[in-house]
Amino acid sequence: MIIVMRKGASKSELAAVESRIAELGYKPHVIHGDTRNVVGAVGDERGKAVLQSIESMPGVENVVPILKPYKLASKEVKLERTVVEISPGVAVGGDQLVVMAGPCSVESEEQILETAHAVKASGATVLRGGAYKPRSSPYSFQGMEEEGLKLLAMAREETGLPVVTEVVNPRDVDLVAKYADVMQVGARNVQNFALLKMLGKLDKPILLKRGMSTTIQEFLMSAEYILSEGNQKVILCERGIRTFETATRNTLDISAVPVLQEQTHLPIIIDPSHATGHASLVPSMCYAAVAAGADGLIVEVHPHPEVAASDGPQSLRPADFQVMMTKLAEFAKVVGKTF
Amino acid sequence: MIIVMRKGASKSELAAVESRIAELGYKPHVIHGDTRNVVGAVGDERGKAVLQSIESMPGVENVVPILKPYKLASKEVKLERTVVEISPGVAVGGDQLVVMAGPCSVESEEQILETAHAVKASGATVLRGGAYKPRSSPYSFQGMEEEGLKLLAMAREETGLPVVTEVVNPRDVDLVAKYADVMQVGARNVQNFALLKMLGKLDKPILLKRGMSTTIQEFLMSAEYILSEGNQKVILCERGIRTFETATRNTLDISAVPVLQEQTHLPIIIDPSHATGHASLVPSMCYAAVAAGADGLIVEVHPHPEVAASDGPQSLRPADFQVMMTKLAEFAKVVGKTF
Amino acid sequence: MIIVMRKGASKSELAAVESRIAELGYKPHVIHGDTRNVVGAVGDERGKAVLQSIESMPGVENVVPILKPYKLASKEVKLERTVVEISPGVAVGGDQLVVMAGPCSVESEEQILETAHAVKASGATVLRGGAYKPRSSPYSFQGMEEEGLKLLAMAREETGLPVVTEVVNPRDVDLVAKYADVMQVGARNVQNFALLKMLGKLDKPILLKRGMSTTIQEFLMSAEYILSEGNQKVILCERGIRTFETATRNTLDISAVPVLQEQTHLPIIIDPSHATGHASLVPSMCYAAVAAGADGLIVEVHPHPEVAASDGPQSLRPADFQVMMTKLAEFAKVVGKTF
Amino acid sequence: MIIVMRKGASKSELAAVESRIAELGYKPHVIHGDTRNVVGAVGDERGKAVLQSIESMPGVENVVPILKPYKLASKEVKLERTVVEISPGVAVGGDQLVVMAGPCSVESEEQILETAHAVKASGATVLRGGAYKPRSSPYSFQGMEEEGLKLLAMAREETGLPVVTEVVNPRDVDLVAKYADVMQVGARNVQNFALLKMLGKLDKPILLKRGMSTTIQEFLMSAEYILSEGNQKVILCERGIRTFETATRNTLDISAVPVLQEQTHLPIIIDPSHATGHASLVPSMCYAAVAAGADGLIVEVHPHPEVAASDGPQSLRPADFQVMMTKLAEFAKVVGKTF
Repeated sequence: MIIVMRKGASKSELAAVESRIAELGYKPHVIHGDTRNVVGAVGDERGKAVLQSIESMPGVENVVPILKPYKLASKEVKLERTVVEISPGVAVGGDQLVVMAGPCSVESEEQILETAHAVKASGATVLRGGAYKPRSSPYSFQGMEEEGLKLLAMAREETGLPVVTEVVNPRDVDLVAKYADVMQVGARNVQNFALLKMLGKLDKPILLKRGMSTTIQEFLMSAEYILSEGNQKVILCERGIRTFETATRNTLDISAVPVLQEQTHLPIIIDPSHATGHASLVPSMCYAAVAAGADGLIVEVHPHPEVAASDGPQSLRPADFQVMMTKLAEFAKVVGKTF
Repeated sequence: MIIVMRKGASKSELAAVESRIAELGYKPHVIHGDTRNVVGAVGDERGKAVLQSIESMPGVENVVPILKPYKLASKEVKLERTVVEISPGVAVGGDQLVVMAGPCSVESEEQILETAHAVKASGATVLRGGAYKPRSSPYSFQGMEEEGLKLLAMAREETGLPVVTEVVNPRDVDLVAKYADVMQVGARNVQNFALLKMLGKLDKPILLKRGMSTTIQEFLMSAEYILSEGNQKVILCERGIRTFETATRNTLDISAVPVLQEQTHLPIIIDPSHATGHASLVPSMCYAAVAAGADGLIVEVHPHPEVAASDGPQSLRPADFQVMMTKLAEFAKVVGKTF
Repeated sequence: MIIVMRKGASKSELAAVESRIAELGYKPHVIHGDTRNVVGAVGDERGKAVLQSIESMPGVENVVPILKPYKLASKEVKLERTVVEISPGVAVGGDQLVVMAGPCSVESEEQILETAHAVKASGATVLRGGAYKPRSSPYSFQGMEEEGLKLLAMAREETGLPVVTEVVNPRDVDLVAKYADVMQVGARNVQNFALLKMLGKLDKPILLKRGMSTTIQEFLMSAEYILSEGNQKVILCERGIRTFETATRNTLDISAVPVLQEQTHLPIIIDPSHATGHASLVPSMCYAAVAAGADGLIVEVHPHPEVAASDGPQSLRPADFQVMMTKLAEFAKVVGKTF
Repeated sequence: MIIVMRKGASKSELAAVESRIAELGYKPHVIHGDTRNVVGAVGDERGKAVLQSIESMPGVENVVPILKPYKLASKEVKLERTVVEISPGVAVGGDQLVVMAGPCSVESEEQILETAHAVKASGATVLRGGAYKPRSSPYSFQGMEEEGLKLLAMAREETGLPVVTEVVNPRDVDLVAKYADVMQVGARNVQNFALLKMLGKLDKPILLKRGMSTTIQEFLMSAEYILSEGNQKVILCERGIRTFETATRNTLDISAVPVLQEQTHLPIIIDPSHATGHASLVPSMCYAAVAAGADGLIVEVHPHPEVAASDGPQSLRPADFQVMMTKLAEFAKVVGKTF
């Protein structure tokens, strides 16, 4: 932390700040400037939140954090990239490009099985499907709940594809964990810390989606919640952020891929479906994601988007998914990855 | 909903859209335009989410929602303003300007009692204080939990002030309800639908904070989750939205006050502390909120902000709170409200 | 500036950074931290942009600016508030609450005269009206140009109200200056530096609108362009920023008022019409602005908004303006200001 | 346009709206809904801005635009993609991937020549370099002006590379046009309509950068300003938008590429340097841009970024540019493009 003193702050105000820094267990270090002084607080970074309160002391202009607040998620602590194994032969973060695909919501046995077979045939290695749906309207379809989880398990048995599905309530963590190979935390729950802490106690991969207005630093702090409870199997997922632009549902922050790769050892995948909101935009964003260095994709595919219970406009038809995957293989090759 | 057809869409594509609209229980109504056709889907608005999937049909350019998706929260359903009684003599939404004040976190008996007495003396009629703290870092102070709730109850007994406190985990709803007069849903949980549904089953006021990137429409949909479960005692709270500006912690969306008053019968209060993040900016935002027509305020006050466990920089000292309240009374008078 | 070195940066990398800082005319000052070093660059702040390039040096993680880049706009340079005189008896920044009102565009002699008389009768002391209109569409009304300026001058003669009008092209500065009492720079031109520099050479008040995505710091840097050319008569105007919220045309950043008052001596007014985009929201935002401490308002008023050539939906009718002004006077009294 | 009437609007209010629509030259078409009526206004889209003012009429809730306001930029008017020839053998919008590279600012003969030779050797086919620099601070380097233009011309003669350079003042259009092969409009001038109109009268390619808070629709309206004056040689450039994220200078809106390709026939290039602000992030964004389907790139390259007069941190060194270009060729091959 750097504490910036006001122009004209008195000597005793400066001394009080130095004392307080020392009291909090840091070493104060003053730089005497031309118009004002600044004070560095040297010491371990965790718990530095309390230093922020120094801003309330007389003579202080503001407090500028210098270092990143996360630790276990940081490349400084763990240099080698984390590879998260989802099932035998399917791992995110290494040379494999993992494509997770399937419908937004599990709607019926027929729907999920048809989709599972189709996406597998095109090269997807994980099946996605929502059984608990956090919908902005209470009047919208809320998911099939445990019935949906059972259908996902059935699809896994039939196709061999591991499944990723969302959990929205801390209460349901054990239930969902019984069925899921990967537990998904949706964008709206990225700072549902009660949920994150429970997932941190599992020994199962967690797919953590970035919130629509979560900074990359906050995103890594949310990952830190899971990591600090003991679960190291965290897969990050960028799925678009909220901006002023309305041509797309969200704005895909593609540069989050290299930024995250500089800051963390955790694998990063992209969700182009929620990012764009329109199926026609999905393929080019899949290509861009892979070219940018993403470790995988999670893509919505529905056999009949025009009758989907949710997210129809952004779901690819199986035939379009097939075309996309064929092209995607060429990009994967350039970056040295295979499905 | 208005379905906009592409220029050059065929007759059979248009017919298919009309059929699908009818199938979903709406009446299709075509307007033949100069360059393209648009189709109105007439009918009850709830559940219209499925209409959105028509965007996936051939020949469709896009689907434009026309009406608001909420119902119980709407002024069209209930014209008279809702007045939420918090305790005998304290009600939000009527002629009273309700000021809730207290520390970000309950830290100790001494701290919460000192603050409670101070804010009461200045005219606040509700005590705020967090016992469960959703912090972006797992290494930051997470709150005193039930111990904090007990201290709040003790402060209520000593001062007579009802208390508002946050609940973050559906599991804790009953426990928090045992102590709190008003249950607060924090900005990060505005779309924690599992939590909202549980709160909808209580017979207790809910203070629902807008999320940092929640649109006003989504905000009202979150209120709708509570209302549709039966609890009509919802108090809305604008607390700043996330924008590009970094001079303030968030950007106080003051125009949300009149916008909400046009759209809903629910009372609206303002949290200037989280909105601005700096104590020096809080008083003028309190005045602006009241002038804009807000029904109340929730303000962070701490006897010693420079040692606060959380949110020190945005907490007013009791003496500054007193000065603010004195001035505030003058603005309240202009809008015809009293403390 | 604070230069943050990477964890593990070598001694020679640190030495090179120190040398470079010295070379650029600043004094380097190293703080040796637990995990990394940081280097303060002490010296005059202007022109520090070049220091930013140090980020490209080996071993450097990032460069954090500490001080504000503006000087003449800063309260540190000039403590007393600037009062800008617009015409005899009309001055912004002192005890007067200056209300500028009139149509978005000058459309006809009848329209501007009718409006001028109406707003004067209600207490406005400056007439606004656009003769050059920067419209997002080339097919929209672009303004009456010099003809419009002449009509404004005629309205001034008839009513005695000084006029504020926009200039969009550096070429037109002299022409507009012939007619206008205050030259307005619109939001889209806030970083049109060629225009700002020319206006800096005039001896005439400049009303500088904040851009829709301009930070407060950038806004003050734009003011600095005018000030540094010699013109000290700058009036700042907050008119809403672009956010994700679509219920309003822009989001009025009301907290910009106290933030600017902490940072600059220049007067600050609010434009609630462009901020909200809807006439019904304008009055409450006028009240909020005054309560927050603004020095004035600029409000769109049109005798027949439903036939306005531009900005109809956000224009108040004269009768509604009158009601607003009456109420506004009560708020003005509380803050110790008069029309 | 769709005019949404309020619930309970009277028959005469509806009739007045219909009359007004007809008066403005459109055909009104009423859809009688269950709770309210909506009125479609059928007719030519240009000039529809005036329809917006109907929102001020009694009984009207709001006015929803349905169609896009641009015409000449639209694919509906011109289906085949526009190919803009920059110089013999260099054309944007076809099978060629055009890479424009060079320093942010022209600083000296040595600097620009060294860079020009380097980028040419790596495969760039256009040289970029700024002679007029719009800087947020008046105290920052403002560019070498005509001297800089002459150095660019000298570099063109030496290397054969055509040059792209920015014009910021309508006054300088002719001067810059004397030297430049492509005239660049910077992000801050995207709605400098006076400048756009002048550029519309040239017979020279215009590189139009999207503003940092310009929607895609507004961006195309700015292009429309140039096109409607007669100049069809417009190259669009996405360069990052302003969001809440601060890890990057701006947020590269990569999905703007497919969105624009659906809406316009104009070519689209990407500026990853301004989008990210950090050289280390540039290569992956170049790859992503090409994979997403962009027609070209404009990249900042500086022989010595650590001493650059502007934008050092985001400039690639020639050696890194070379590495990037080699990899880029592989991605270009996948999308069927060549340098």
